[in-house]
Amino acid sequence: MRFGTARTADGDRVVVRDGEGARILPFSSVREALADGVLTDERTADLLRSSEPVDLGDLDLAPAVSGGKVICVGHNFTSHILELGHGLPDHPNVFSKFPEALVGPNDDIRLDVASEAWDWEAELAVVIGTAVRRADRDTAARAVAGYTVANDVSARDWQRRASQWLLGKTFESTTPLGPWIVTTDEVDPAAGLQISCSVDGVTKQQSTTADLLFDAPSLVAYVSQVVTLQPGDVILTGTPGGVGTARKPPERLLPGQLVVTAVEGIGECRNRCVSSGQQLTSNA
Amino acid sequence: MRFGTARTADGDRVVVRDGEGARILPFSSVREALADGVLTDERTADLLRSSEPVDLGDLDLAPAVSGGKVICVGHNFTSHILELGHGLPDHPNVFSKFPEALVGPNDDIRLDVASEAWDWEAELAVVIGTAVRRADRDTAARAVAGYTVANDVSARDWQRRASQWLLGKTFESTTPLGPWIVTTDEVDPAAGLQISCSVDGVTKQQSTTADLLFDAPSLVAYVSQVVTLQPGDVILTGTPGGVGTARKPPERLLPGQLVVTAVEGIGECRNRCVSSGQQLTSNA
Repeated sequence: MRFGTARTADGDRVVVRDGEGARILPFSSVREALADGVLTDERTADLLRSSEPVDLGDLDLAPAVSGGKVICVGHNFTSHILELGHGLPDHPNVFSKFPEALVGPNDDIRLDVASEAWDWEAELAVVIGTAVRRADRDTAARAVAGYTVANDVSARDWQRRASQWLLGKTFESTTPLGPWIVTTDEVDPAAGLQISCSVDGVTKQQSTTADLLFDAPSLVAYVSQVVTLQPGDVILTGTPGGVGTARKPPERLLPGQLVVTAVEGIGECRNRCVSSGQQLTSNA
Repeated sequence: MRFGTARTADGDRVVVRDGEGARILPFSSVREALADGVLTDERTADLLRSSEPVDLGDLDLAPAVSGGKVICVGHNFTSHILELGHGLPDHPNVFSKFPEALVGPNDDIRLDVASEAWDWEAELAVVIGTAVRRADRDTAARAVAGYTVANDVSARDWQRRASQWLLGKTFESTTPLGPWIVTTDEVDPAAGLQISCSVDGVTKQQSTTADLLFDAPSLVAYVSQVVTLQPGDVILTGTPGGVGTARKPPERLLPGQLVVTAVEGIGECRNRCVSSGQQLTSNA
């Protein structure tokens, strides 16, 4: 199954793919629908039959899921770590974004003028389906509802001006997430899905999810040692090589550019970059 | 005014100090009450008169506010930075916790057995009262509803096993917050409030909030360049010297110990440490 979130005249609604179209379900958030189990049991089929069919082209897609924890992982593609000359880490490097960072799969990415070093980071995103704490690997795997696509767009100057990356990672309306959450029965990242990012049609990142050092079950199990993962929480699993800051010469993301972030078998985000905000005098 | 959150038979309720007692207001969260403006206008007096009086001793206090963003700041006490031999930073070092980390001012601190290096960090916490984005210093100062007390209890081993501190900072049920949010008309940290942490009656940290390098308005203005700060969001402003990891020999927090975290004129958290969880096989 493939599901996500659409903006409608009545507010956000859960939307489920149905062939070449989609059906709008009477739930206002994927988080609540997952927590209620409605997307994973026999009620789904009944709901789909009785729900409104819509054309895909008529949908205004929001972030596939939002409002919960947005957990992110640093260097996690083996070939990229090795090409940087680093040793393989013993533990995932985990940080977070605030939910305000998320945008829909076709929304503008708002490049705030407060940064002069915007960059792309194509990532596979894991969506939690059931609450887990202190999970072993098998339990963690079963807690995954599905996978979607994200771009961990980053303000490198803000990311690096202190040891902690948070502010460079959580500018409002910078992180595309979607379009669809594809359930685990339909897609298996460990088998190797192509992941890519292009800017104005030029491929900048190209790798396979089989190269993830810590895979989805490992990441879910690890983070669940610390905090309960809830339905609708998201883990962005890290980006492969080819980011702008590591290119020679370095490149950056600019207003007007079109960023396409894709994971094979899952879908793609197509986002236009726009300039946002105004120059402020320094506050701190 | 002094307000916070109490657990009642009807669920969480906003509670306001009234002399030696308190009054329970018909709101289930401080975030909503702040967003509604109810704690900052003439409705407050009416609500207090018509609300139920209770004895302080009968209150089961929850985290003073919860559910919003929990923003944290690294080294931010000037004397502590200098005693460590560091230069003063140009920018605050900002990270976050997930809301699940918070506990009430008298709740147990749950020291998970997954860490062998628990530590204390007394902090002044700033509570946002009105939404702000790209605020100048004056606007930022007006957006502060008040101040409360926090202890940024940290698992040093998890904090240091990767460059990003998040997992060492966000173990579930480790961060006391409360007991009361004291409004800005009653208390001024810039004037210098004593801040302290004691463990089993022995003072471990003792400083003054006048020594904060980046004060509350500076931090609010700075973070608001990146993301909208919402009513009920919290900023933990950093801890002074005297943490266990920096003591010679190093000390750590242990199950059974009583941690008292206090800020002059605001209040204190009194929390017993308990052991939590069970040893797992390594997951990642």
